[in-house]
Amino acid sequence: MASPLRFEGGVLELLDQTLLPGEEVWLRCETPEQVADAIRRLAVRGAPAIGVAAAYGLVLGSARFDEAAELLVSTRPTAVNLRWAIERGREAHARGEDLLEWANALALAQAEADRRMAAHAAALFDAGSRVYTHCNTGGLATAGSGTALGAIEEAWRAGLVGHVWVGETRPLLQGARLTAWELERAGVPFRVVTDSSAAALMARGEVDLVMVGADRIARNGDVANKVGTYGLAVLADRHGIPFHVVAPLSTLDPGTPTGADIPIEERDPGEVTGHAPAFNLAFDVAPHDLVSSIVTEAGVLEPPYEDAIARVLRAQSPA
Amino acid sequence: MASPLRFEGGVLELLDQTLLPGEEVWLRCETPEQVADAIRRLAVRGAPAIGVAAAYGLVLGSARFDEAAELLVSTRPTAVNLRWAIERGREAHARGEDLLEWANALALAQAEADRRMAAHAAALFDAGSRVYTHCNTGGLATAGSGTALGAIEEAWRAGLVGHVWVGETRPLLQGARLTAWELERAGVPFRVVTDSSAAALMARGEVDLVMVGADRIARNGDVANKVGTYGLAVLADRHGIPFHVVAPLSTLDPGTPTGADIPIEERDPGEVTGHAPAFNLAFDVAPHDLVSSIVTEAGVLEPPYEDAIARVLRAQSPA
Repeated sequence: MASPLRFEGGVLELLDQTLLPGEEVWLRCETPEQVADAIRRLAVRGAPAIGVAAAYGLVLGSARFDEAAELLVSTRPTAVNLRWAIERGREAHARGEDLLEWANALALAQAEADRRMAAHAAALFDAGSRVYTHCNTGGLATAGSGTALGAIEEAWRAGLVGHVWVGETRPLLQGARLTAWELERAGVPFRVVTDSSAAALMARGEVDLVMVGADRIARNGDVANKVGTYGLAVLADRHGIPFHVVAPLSTLDPGTPTGADIPIEERDPGEVTGHAPAFNLAFDVAPHDLVSSIVTEAGVLEPPYEDAIARVLRAQSPA
Repeated sequence: MASPLRFEGGVLELLDQTLLPGEEVWLRCETPEQVADAIRRLAVRGAPAIGVAAAYGLVLGSARFDEAAELLVSTRPTAVNLRWAIERGREAHARGEDLLEWANALALAQAEADRRMAAHAAALFDAGSRVYTHCNTGGLATAGSGTALGAIEEAWRAGLVGHVWVGETRPLLQGARLTAWELERAGVPFRVVTDSSAAALMARGEVDLVMVGADRIARNGDVANKVGTYGLAVLADRHGIPFHVVAPLSTLDPGTPTGADIPIEERDPGEVTGHAPAFNLAFDVAPHDLVSSIVTEAGVLEPPYEDAIARVLRAQSPA
């Protein structure tokens, strides 16, 4: 576990994830503008962690709440946890709650959700499972213990993981930089591979299950996540390998009917290559029929997802 | 077209492809050891170009032919053109032929094969086709006009290509560095994408056909090529997109029954990442049932490939 943020003395400090694993530099944010900038340039990233960072951004901007909320929500379009956190903050603000207490509670709830997801996900591993994962979904991505990677680490501690394949996750190498950094610190055996090696590893029988996070899950169970996720889902399907998604309930977006309705962020082509024209799609969508299960803090959802998602959200909403 | 090698005054000069597109540096090779080293570290790469470079390596080592042949053939295990060229050289040597004349003829034949492949491949494009390609299969890869990329450039000149998607091809970025460099010089519109963007582009309907080269084609039509090729074939199949392979007859290996029998080179993990354990599979295998056609200089082969390959090789062998 590696918490990428802390709030002390009216300052949000963020571990600059663009510099890992080479340097561990903490950014000091004293305004919502600084938090928004850090989110935009991925100094803090990972759908749940963005939500937590944005919550503290609201704290920093409480004197001009609406402006801060609008600024923060506009930073990244795909991860719905960001919008979710801002909406919860708006409600707390309207109720006159202390925003810092609210943000602290939100961060604690996220960490608790992570622990529960990991506990539920344990049922999806066998002894010695060889797991393929993509992007970074550990503590760095949630400010807790992580979603998919937190579950993998917990399963490893329980003797259920033999080895982790880490897709490097171009263009920004969240796998090779961040997931490798977290697994190394946790002592979990792993190897980094290029993203396009996944198909060959599956064909060679070297992958028992795929486990990834999510940036937004539509009402029908379609999963938006880091670009490359859709291809992994297709390949897992072809090889009869389970494809599991681990994401907190705040990632479920009942207002978005299907994956086709999820806005997909396009980022600076310069992140891909500086010397030729490029196109940089940051996310893609794995359709629900390729998803074996969705692990939430409320339990493991299985198809049909439209029903399962409606049910779990109904159970969560205040009576 | 960008020829990556020239032989003059008893010296083989190789354009160092590890330094492109930043620098154009020509290496001078005066011994087979220097040629072998250049092949091993990918200063010259691309299955047909390796074959041509090895042919000139034999010229440089003619005074100790067997030693040179053994050294050169051991440099890279997957691309069969290398072994094919060495075997043709061995025959020429046994017949007492002038090796330089033989090597020049082999290089000319390769360039002529490239032209014919491009002519045959034209039938596979429609006006304005949006083509996805992987790795580098242009003049740099063959010392002629290229296999898949040569065909794409020729089709573009005929108005048949709207746009090329170039998979960057990690870890060594042959797409982002070399294919982009060649397409830019040829004036063909293109954009580089991360390898794991291919699935999303297909899902968005932005790819009309996939065209790649090959390092070895087994007797049954299974195609070994740069890692990532197999995944592209699976994804093209899922989206009903044609998946074409362009390769000279020297890439066909009737002595290898299936893709499972093709040796797959594993390269230095440091090519993937320097700061974490990695696994670096250089090639993978697209099974024949995912291949829409194999374009050779003798025409376009279609399934069933075992018959088509046997027929075309029979027609080529000396009566």
